[in-house]
This record gives sequence, C-alpha cells and structure tokens, in this order.
Amino acid sequence: MINFEALFKISYGLYIVSSGDKNKGNGYVANTVFQITSEPPKFATCCNKNNFTSEFIQKHKAFSVSILAQNASTEIFGKFGYKSGKDFDKMVDTQIKYGDTGVPIILNESIAFFECKLVQTIDVGTHLMFIGELVDAQIIDNTKTPLTYLHYRQINKASAPKNAPTYIDKSKLGTKLKSKKSGIYKCIVCGHIYDEDIEEVKFANLPVDWKCPICGADKKDFIIV
Amino acid sequence: MINFEALFKISYGLYIVSSGDKNKGNGYVANTVFQITSEPPKFATCCNKNNFTSEFIQKHKAFSVSILAQNASTEIFGKFGYKSGKDFDKMVDTQIKYGDTGVPIILNESIAFFECKLVQTIDVGTHLMFIGELVDAQIIDNTKTPLTYLHYRQINKASAPKNAPTYIDKSKLGTKLKSKKSGIYKCIVCGHIYDEDIEEVKFANLPVDWKCPICGADKKDFIIV
Repeated sequence: MINFEALFKISYGLYIVSSGDKNKGNGYVANTVFQITSEPPKFATCCNKNNFTSEFIQKHKAFSVSILAQNASTEIFGKFGYKSGKDFDKMVDTQIKYGDTGVPIILNESIAFFECKLVQTIDVGTHLMFIGELVDAQIIDNTKTPLTYLHYRQINKASAPKNAPTYIDKSKLGTKLKSKKSGIYKCIVCGHIYDEDIEEVKFANLPVDWKCPICGADKKDFIIV
Repeated sequence: MINFEALFKISYGLYIVSSGDKNKGNGYVANTVFQITSEPPKFATCCNKNNFTSEFIQKHKAFSVSILAQNASTEIFGKFGYKSGKDFDKMVDTQIKYGDTGVPIILNESIAFFECKLVQTIDVGTHLMFIGELVDAQIIDNTKTPLTYLHYRQINKASAPKNAPTYIDKSKLGTKLKSKKSGIYKCIVCGHIYDEDIEEVKFANLPVDWKCPICGADKKDFIIV
C-alpha cells in the first residue's frame, strides 16, 4: 500500500508567484518552484487551472517569484495562500515593485525574488506547468533564512490547500488526529487544528472576533473533530 | 544586473533518481524532484540529456526516487553525484530493492522512497523533464530528517555539478573566493574547496592517497585557486 506520508519527506520552499500589471494583478502561495535548466536559466512552477493567477500568467506571459522568509507571518498566508483574488484585490496594502516584464513582485516578508518571461506552458492534468526564462533576480534581505514547507507545516500544523499540487486527502493518511476527542477544532477553510491541550485556552473562551491564525477565517468556521 | 545568488534561496531536497532493471541500472543525485498534481499524484524530475540515467528512464518508462537523509555520507555523493554510470556499475555494493515497475530503488542512506511510471517526457532544452505517476511510496526511517540542498551546500561547501539544472557558472557570481591567495585548493571534479585556514593542515602535507571528501577524486585533481 502506498504510504502517502513518505511524500512529506520531499523538500520544498514557499513562494508567492505573481503576475498581472499595474492595473490588475494577483499572486498565490506556491511550493512547487524549481530551476529546470541552467543554460539558459529556466524555472518552472505548477499552478492549478482554477487558480486566478493562472489567467494572469497566460495573459501577461510572465511571472515573478518572491521567496518567503522563515518568519513570514500567518497574515501573508491568509491573504495569498487561502483566499482567491477573484474575491478581493490582493495587491491593495501590499508592497509591490513592478519588474522588467511589467509584472508585480511582492516584497513583503520576502528575502529574494526573481522574474521570468513565460516560454512554455505544459498541461499536466489538474495543473498547468509554467516554464519561464530568467529576466531578473535580486536579494532583498541576505540575513534571513528561506522558509521551507517542512518548517511551515511543523510550526503552523497547517496543510496544503485543495488547489496545491501537494494537497493530500487526509483519508489517505494513517492520520493521528484524535477523532471524536473533545477539545480539537479544525478550520474548514485551511485545515488548521486548534488543540485545547496545546493552546491552554478553551475554544469556547476565545473572543468572538478571534480569527484562524493561518488563514484569517472566522471562529465560526471551526468544527469539532 | 541579475544577482544569481538570489537563486540559492530556492529550497530543494536531495535525492537519488534511478531507473533500469535487475540486469543493468543507474542512478544519479538530483535536487529537482517535486510533486506537480495531487489527483492523480504525479511527480517531475529534470535530467540532463547527457545523463546516463536519462536513457534508462526512457527505455524502462519508470523511475524511482530515494530521499536522502541529512547525514548522508560524502561517499554516496561521490558515487551517485559526481561520477557517471557510463564508467562503472553504480549498482554494485549498493543496497537495492526492485520496485513494482522493476526499477531499482536505492535504499542506502535514504529515509523514504517513491516509484513512478513515466507518463510524459518534456524537452526543456539541455534537460528532459520526466513526469511520472505514483506507483508506490514508503518510509524507510521516520526518525531522520531529509537532507536539503541548502544544508548540503553549507556543510560541504560544494557546488552543483555541470549537468545539474541548478549549476551556476562561478564567473556569474560576485564570488568571495580569494583568488590567487595561496592556501585555497579546488577539486576540478566536483568544485570542493580545501581551505588551509579552515582545515588547519597544509594541502601539501596531506597523504598522497588522500581523496576529495566529496567526490573521491585524487589529491592531484586539486588546483590552487
């Protein structure tokens, strides 16, 4: 039997992939970003076909990648990771630089960025793989460590959203979630677990305006598991 | 100007990608291994067209990926990372399991592995991108941490070999290598730097049968930089 937990041993970073222009842009949190050739330097990223940014990359034929810092806040994941730009403008209140290709580059909480012009789009099923040739690359903060997906999962006990290439249906895992035990609540938006044993505050005693620390969902979006 | 050092902020793991059968197989160290879709679970890896394993993957239409442990030895990199299977049989003295597809799976110094049948091959220039659908995945040792490329570079001060997608020509970097300063020796096979200031033993005083700790090259394969 396939042990899907083995796949968690694959290492990824965490990035914001963006596209668009000064009028309208969008970005999303991605973990599948990787170099595929060195001469010329080409990079690939996988984007769900339903992902709003996917439309921008195809239209503007370019994308940027911001490399998130290890201490990146939960707010940035709430904004770029678990919400769709179809519902609101992610570029508002975001620190942006426009690149040589005209695409927005998110600077918030990033240690470096690079920008690519689109050279190949490959249909790989549920996702499109965008291949871009390097146009620019810069370091923003050389003192910080890049965030890895492993670190993010360990710190936030979070899981990949349904659109991610690495999404794993929990029913496939030999999961250790204590089902039916009271005191464990799960965010139905991002899957974040609130465990009263760890947090030391009863879920019921949290203020009504308390938000999911990962995705910003309301308290009412949590269910007992 | 493009700052190529920004690209070192991209996170990768380190893997041995293998293919072949019981008669003849080969494997190589790869850092570009990543999941590209979740339904069905599909994975991609980039392989230089000159890479010997590339021929095996195309012939056998399957490949395995062994996820290396953080404490993987320099010997495993010497054997699978910096030497070609065209010159010797890498499968000799290697701990191997044969997978459902018949391909060899390297178990040495690995914490997990997975196996894919080839479903798509994409020409991306100097490299082929092999896309495989998951056939099996297992954990070998759940107590160990996966090795990241960042960790490997920091510990071994090593660089990617010329066939790697992430190979960077040193002349493109604002490199800190103290050129012409005596006491710094470089392995012409793998690029490993021997710095007398750090090692505290004069290079000339090393025994004649001393080998490069990374790739196993001879002492005579080092040049003064």
